[in-house]
Amino acid sequence: MSLTLPAESADVGTAFGTGVSTDEIFAAHEGGKLRIELARPIDSARDLAVVYTPGVAEVSRAIHTDAAVAASHTWASRLVAVVSDGTAVLGLGDIGPAAALPVMEGKSALFQRFAGLNSIPLVLDTTDVDEIVETLVRLRHSFGAVNLEDVSAPRCFELEAKLIEALDMPVMHDDQHGTAVVVLAAITNGAKVLGRDLRGLRVVVSGAGAAGIAIAALLLEVGVEDVVVLDSRGILSNRRFDLLGVKARFAVRSNPRQVHGGPAQALAGADVFIGVSSGTVDENLLATMSDDAMIFALSNPDPEVAPEVAARYARIVATGRSDYPNQINNVLAFPGIFRGALDAGARRITTAMKIAAATAIAALIGDDLAADFIVPSPFDERVASAVAAAVIAAV
Amino acid sequence: MSLTLPAESADVGTAFGTGVSTDEIFAAHEGGKLRIELARPIDSARDLAVVYTPGVAEVSRAIHTDAAVAASHTWASRLVAVVSDGTAVLGLGDIGPAAALPVMEGKSALFQRFAGLNSIPLVLDTTDVDEIVETLVRLRHSFGAVNLEDVSAPRCFELEAKLIEALDMPVMHDDQHGTAVVVLAAITNGAKVLGRDLRGLRVVVSGAGAAGIAIAALLLEVGVEDVVVLDSRGILSNRRFDLLGVKARFAVRSNPRQVHGGPAQALAGADVFIGVSSGTVDENLLATMSDDAMIFALSNPDPEVAPEVAARYARIVATGRSDYPNQINNVLAFPGIFRGALDAGARRITTAMKIAAATAIAALIGDDLAADFIVPSPFDERVASAVAAAVIAAV
Repeated sequence: MSLTLPAESADVGTAFGTGVSTDEIFAAHEGGKLRIELARPIDSARDLAVVYTPGVAEVSRAIHTDAAVAASHTWASRLVAVVSDGTAVLGLGDIGPAAALPVMEGKSALFQRFAGLNSIPLVLDTTDVDEIVETLVRLRHSFGAVNLEDVSAPRCFELEAKLIEALDMPVMHDDQHGTAVVVLAAITNGAKVLGRDLRGLRVVVSGAGAAGIAIAALLLEVGVEDVVVLDSRGILSNRRFDLLGVKARFAVRSNPRQVHGGPAQALAGADVFIGVSSGTVDENLLATMSDDAMIFALSNPDPEVAPEVAARYARIVATGRSDYPNQINNVLAFPGIFRGALDAGARRITTAMKIAAATAIAALIGDDLAADFIVPSPFDERVASAVAAAVIAAV
Repeated sequence: MSLTLPAESADVGTAFGTGVSTDEIFAAHEGGKLRIELARPIDSARDLAVVYTPGVAEVSRAIHTDAAVAASHTWASRLVAVVSDGTAVLGLGDIGPAAALPVMEGKSALFQRFAGLNSIPLVLDTTDVDEIVETLVRLRHSFGAVNLEDVSAPRCFELEAKLIEALDMPVMHDDQHGTAVVVLAAITNGAKVLGRDLRGLRVVVSGAGAAGIAIAALLLEVGVEDVVVLDSRGILSNRRFDLLGVKARFAVRSNPRQVHGGPAQALAGADVFIGVSSGTVDENLLATMSDDAMIFALSNPDPEVAPEVAARYARIVATGRSDYPNQINNVLAFPGIFRGALDAGARRITTAMKIAAATAIAALIGDDLAADFIVPSPFDERVASAVAAAVIAAV
């Protein structure tokens, strides 16, 4: 999910209520955030003979004879490559592969921390979709899954689709699907709080980038009928002649009433507002939503509308921020999704798995469900294993 | 260095005197040999805010402004990529990238174990030199050095040269230079034992692959004048019209007496035999060497001549095996060379660094120098730091 940071670095801590200083951030990054460790010690000539020459040749020969041995006897088959070309890094935009690296290292660290998966960051100094695919195909025996990250839209849609075809392993663009899964979990629980049928909700998605499109697509998949998507020029509809690719498809796939216009036309009578636009939304328009509304103002660090203001017009308010209730955080989804897919030996991450993941996240709330508690904390240690189990069951 | 294993896996332990069983080898490889660990724990929302969003954006922005921040605040600048296309894996030959992976994982483990360097294996499903270069150039912000491994000759010479030009970081094909450095260290100490001037030795290198060519080149660099190289067809000389590329260059660069013929012509009166051919050498020819000879029979697991036989014709005998004295093991060289180059911020691994590394390895023997003790043990914990220090001093 995209984050925009204030220009003045010293504001970061304040903005997020974390009290984190720039000095603390840089100190924690010195030398990088990942380490390679040995699975077993090498302390003797005998150890060397086992893990390196001559013993290792036994394993190489076995793999040469039977490729399945690579899956069980190397680290690669369960290694998640976190891949980015640095074109849409957080809210910073196209800052390139070197500057993207700390984010990808962090993501790899999260895979280890939350799912016990080994993960390495790979940043690419090309923005050509076919070159990225070609590069990863050449490297495909080096890892077992690909988490795409911070790739700009609409390239991210084409890149993910081509990679899924080209690689015989789980591939997922987390900015799309991780976000969509957590949003679906949150809306599922939000609907429960409101006593509404999820599928009957009128949903507005503001932002037609990676997250917006994936959220809309997943909501349609679970049977939400009335989804209206806005880009910076207005509602995606069949009256828009400026749309190409994914947006053109969504102009007819979503928006069953074919509402036309802008935020005003989209929000009138809507039940759910989902902001993933890095923009703002007019308070007066929120007032036109239905009585029991949900407002998910997910842009970071500045939500589309301040949560305190949103609360005047909605019973349920969620943000991307850790200092407010109902934080929509991808870390609830991606570790367990990849863990489950790899544990199951799945070759694709399917829509059924994403829905199962969302259902599992939502279900963890149980009896604690409340308007200000619709998703678990990232540090609820049950999350990743519950998600993984649900994904495995959905294979 | 190339290793050939007996066809029957159960023989491995016996062959090497390590008592290692196939079961033990496979058990030690289950799940792979490497793990990713976090440099710092992530246990709270505050930790998340520091190492991931929003804090990480501070570091990304800093790198975008000043590329030098990437060197100090990501893991990549000191990360060694162990890269192979699987075309010359140990003695197993062209078994491909997947089967090469256990070897590369092992190598990465050795970088961590002996030099405290993070390292990841990257295996490539292309054998096209330019495609390998292109792939690594696209990925170059993901790592800080490249250890090429198990790439077939003569492609390895072209690949290394092109990568050195294309990448602004230390690049070394260890099968060439790691071997050459340890051989130089061993010959340096061997000459001392024999009271000979290194440069006055007549040296025969049997094998004109990666190791043979690099050994010959490094010996020429330190002033050894009489180096004769053999390939499977005989001595590299200016009467050979079948030679191309590196071999054609060595036909005139080495062999100052322009000896022609085969092993018999090469070995008559020679002081040093270095076998890196995976072949054998006729005992009768060894008898024609000078009185105080050195025989380095480095092919594994079957040396060109059994050490017991070699001892009849030479005062100093070395092998690649851990169960005989004087083991020529690359692990004495590559960890310290890369560590030194990275510590020094060097952009190239130069000949001066390789010579300095060899000198440092040889010097560690000190007063313990003897015909059966010319190189330190791989587990002599002083080695990597001594090599690194020498490399840094040679920058």
